[in-house]
Amino acid sequence: MAYNRVARLIKRPQGMVKRDIFEIRDEPLPEPGEGEFRVELSHISLDPAMRGWMNEARSYVEPVALGDIMRALAVGHVEASRNAKFKEGDAVSGRFGVQQYAISDGKGVGRVDEALAPLPTWLGGLGMPGLTAYFGLYEVARPEAGGTVVVSAASGAVGQVVGQLAKIRGCRAVGIAGGAEKCRLLIERFGFDAAVDYTADDLAGQLRTAAPKGIDVDFENVGGEVFDTVLTQMNPFGRIAVCGLISAYNATELPPGPRNIRFVLTMRLRMQGFIVFDFAKRYGEAIAALSGWLKAGKLKLLEDVREGGIDAYPDVLNLLYTSGNRGKLVLKV
Amino acid sequence: MAYNRVARLIKRPQGMVKRDIFEIRDEPLPEPGEGEFRVELSHISLDPAMRGWMNEARSYVEPVALGDIMRALAVGHVEASRNAKFKEGDAVSGRFGVQQYAISDGKGVGRVDEALAPLPTWLGGLGMPGLTAYFGLYEVARPEAGGTVVVSAASGAVGQVVGQLAKIRGCRAVGIAGGAEKCRLLIERFGFDAAVDYTADDLAGQLRTAAPKGIDVDFENVGGEVFDTVLTQMNPFGRIAVCGLISAYNATELPPGPRNIRFVLTMRLRMQGFIVFDFAKRYGEAIAALSGWLKAGKLKLLEDVREGGIDAYPDVLNLLYTSGNRGKLVLKV
Repeated sequence: MAYNRVARLIKRPQGMVKRDIFEIRDEPLPEPGEGEFRVELSHISLDPAMRGWMNEARSYVEPVALGDIMRALAVGHVEASRNAKFKEGDAVSGRFGVQQYAISDGKGVGRVDEALAPLPTWLGGLGMPGLTAYFGLYEVARPEAGGTVVVSAASGAVGQVVGQLAKIRGCRAVGIAGGAEKCRLLIERFGFDAAVDYTADDLAGQLRTAAPKGIDVDFENVGGEVFDTVLTQMNPFGRIAVCGLISAYNATELPPGPRNIRFVLTMRLRMQGFIVFDFAKRYGEAIAALSGWLKAGKLKLLEDVREGGIDAYPDVLNLLYTSGNRGKLVLKV
Repeated sequence: MAYNRVARLIKRPQGMVKRDIFEIRDEPLPEPGEGEFRVELSHISLDPAMRGWMNEARSYVEPVALGDIMRALAVGHVEASRNAKFKEGDAVSGRFGVQQYAISDGKGVGRVDEALAPLPTWLGGLGMPGLTAYFGLYEVARPEAGGTVVVSAASGAVGQVVGQLAKIRGCRAVGIAGGAEKCRLLIERFGFDAAVDYTADDLAGQLRTAAPKGIDVDFENVGGEVFDTVLTQMNPFGRIAVCGLISAYNATELPPGPRNIRFVLTMRLRMQGFIVFDFAKRYGEAIAALSGWLKAGKLKLLEDVREGGIDAYPDVLNLLYTSGNRGKLVLKV
């Protein structure tokens, strides 16, 4: 008899995610009903937003209910189908959850092209993080050629794409990352113009050197002290696209907010939050553009694929919050 | 011999403004050169931004240099002129400074119409605060009819106009002010739909009652704890026009920033700072609109005119930061 290994959320986390907030167990293999199909997942996406989905708080989506399979984007292949539009062997991506097999009626499921890029890439630069970078930079922050774009968590799934899209737009791309190795990656692999190591001394000085004409656009993934330093170097009428505030996601008490918020006023900054789902109608346009740049060699993508299957989910997820990943973090099922 | 009483800034303030940061003294009456004229000031505007102008920090204008006459908007009459465009008796407004008499070449000087409204009103609802309300609300925050607009420091120079412009636009206007007396003023004099007293208990509960459908626009004049509470009740895609952050202007250490900044992300808020000077080319349009509403009885304006002349400037200014004023604060020269 075949089983489906699943991770169910059974407790709300306090601070960092611990294994005991999940029940990870074998369940009977689910069978597709009429109009449905079953996907065998190959890779599960690990996204910073997951930590927020576990909380019971007003947000842009409902929290994952206690007892439910943990919400996750994933890719895999259709392996049994009673849906005319999806046939066995199709490679697909969707919100399939942290499990080995998922049943779907096709809603919100996208087809992916393995000839263009391997499956993990469809969870990274050609998936939600790539779309997030595309809409956040081009539609929310709207950089102008010749301007300076700063992005935090720059070697991460979203950040690596933001920097390269900034270059494509004709901007100076400055990445902020933790440690010399990641900073090298920014310059050598992704083609950033400059890198700032937030774990090294003199963040403000490093940033001034990296962005000598000031900052026109900040693509904010992190928040906290680093963001506070960026705020002080924003140019008049600069834009801040707030994509994530990962430094606070595991806080058990609300950390202090940005102390330098007055620069929003004095420099007339526009600070705008966004969620990629709001651009869902335009995903096709973005995927076409990103795929084109990938094929043309203008976009380099890096995934960090971890082994261990469903059981490894809690530990691998935490790598995001401890700066432990190198590029888009993906769990092999 | 005639003298000119002036207030010169001689020290950078620490915390609240103290008298000893100014030298207040008589100086020889200045004579207009060719192309210049002399204005006898009748009223000086007291604006929250003044505190920032005294600091030596990167901002939207240069700080007032030590030794200079303190920067201030003021109104008065031309009393000696060698400029063909301004003649004796003309009522004018401009950045004349904290003094009895100012010399001007006419640059940045506006003519005001005493038949339409008395001089102090031209420092309030028909002056910079009115323009600030107009552009901040209509151009930066852009409320839609039927939406809910919240404004802090609501009985102040800018806030009182914001609430009334929100009503003119067809919005629900909610004002936040300190104390029952000011809250009554909001409802009874300015026609706000609801008032929230931040000095009373349960700010969040009061705000929920006042804005039962959530907040679409926040016109922020204050910052601090009140703003933090507003953030948690913003509707998706809400806008925050950052006009002022008066709660922090006298802080000797940077106070904590907005702890609830994550709502900018999860609710996809647009938070945008602005300075009225950026709209200088469109002042005429705004003055015409505001004057029209004033004449039509749709706009009620309240000034708080204080006696004491130039010598009273430091103490009267501090009323702004201790919630001591009732409406637009003006110093009679």
